[in-house]
Amino acid sequence: MKIPVIRNILEANERIAEENRKLFEKEKVAVINLMSSPGSGKTSLLECTIDAVKDRIRMGVIEGDVQSTRDAERIAEKGIPAVQINTDGACHLDGNMVRNALATFDLSQLDLLVVENVGNLVCPAEFDVGEDHKVMILSVTEGSDKPEKYPLMFHESSVLLVNKIDLLPYVDCSVEEIRDISLRINPNLEILEISCRTGEGIDRWADWLLKQIKK
Amino acid sequence: MKIPVIRNILEANERIAEENRKLFEKEKVAVINLMSSPGSGKTSLLECTIDAVKDRIRMGVIEGDVQSTRDAERIAEKGIPAVQINTDGACHLDGNMVRNALATFDLSQLDLLVVENVGNLVCPAEFDVGEDHKVMILSVTEGSDKPEKYPLMFHESSVLLVNKIDLLPYVDCSVEEIRDISLRINPNLEILEISCRTGEGIDRWADWLLKQIKK
Repeated sequence: MKIPVIRNILEANERIAEENRKLFEKEKVAVINLMSSPGSGKTSLLECTIDAVKDRIRMGVIEGDVQSTRDAERIAEKGIPAVQINTDGACHLDGNMVRNALATFDLSQLDLLVVENVGNLVCPAEFDVGEDHKVMILSVTEGSDKPEKYPLMFHESSVLLVNKIDLLPYVDCSVEEIRDISLRINPNLEILEISCRTGEGIDRWADWLLKQIKK
Repeated sequence: MKIPVIRNILEANERIAEENRKLFEKEKVAVINLMSSPGSGKTSLLECTIDAVKDRIRMGVIEGDVQSTRDAERIAEKGIPAVQINTDGACHLDGNMVRNALATFDLSQLDLLVVENVGNLVCPAEFDVGEDHKVMILSVTEGSDKPEKYPLMFHESSVLLVNKIDLLPYVDCSVEEIRDISLRINPNLEILEISCRTGEGIDRWADWLLKQIKK
């Protein structure tokens, strides 16, 4: 599907992403591109992240989904500015979609913008949106073979959040294997074990996030 | 990414998929295109399906992954002919990839061919590979909002397997909500609750599968 045109499209995307990046630099907004499979817990992570940091920084969220506004509604309930992008079939966000969504924010009033990508372990990793860091989630329910089968996202990310560790007693998944293979793919990857359900590890994730703030 | 060329590519794919379909008809091979998010249990389902039906029918498997041969190795261990397609970045299989893989099978000796697609809840549903039925898995760990957020696959599938129901006591997921929304999207969808871990529901799934056999 993408072979015939991928170079041109990636180059065009790169230009727009660079423009976004310059704007974020100018406004001193730290930007995270949050990626994972469907149902790994991206929106749940955002909910507990907001609870953990909202008294210390000003945060905004762009939600990317093929359809529905469920995720933006969940974020808005937390009292955080949120906008929903519906990709109408496309399996990832790109620089242009994010640029169009930026018009709804006053960036001078934000310290952190999190872009929650479409749930997909493949394509989102190919498309820069102008972020400072790509952060990915892998749920332990997905199994420890995922880094080997979908290496690009592990390679491109700064942080891997291994989520739903409260379910480890009930699933066949080795966090050690996830660590080993992920670090072979990306030796600089920061790996944090978390549970959005119990709150375990969220403090360490919030610490990492607060270190990225520029204002 | 796909907008500029999607019509031509989908049309070209449709032609190849139709050729595959004619070949499958001629050889009387029932073909299932198995789709889901990464880690929902496609390969585990195939392992227990093989155990359930291999004394009654002759089965082959095409494994689709971005990288690695892990899944084809797991299937081959069950004594079933299996071939691995590596898409090298592409987030779905298409008719041409499947056609190329067919050369490794003697179709006259097969009753059932299962094509396990790349783990992705979006794009695989757009690409016919010549199958008789699309079958999808949703794991209860992914949450009950998935039909509304990724409706196309639910719309295109003949069967929805709700997997990992052994984990229901530990996750926030309503199978009733999955049923309600899925049936609103696709009133003809057959929904079966299963656990590849405990074997629950696999007999009903095997019954459905055996009804599709043409020889």
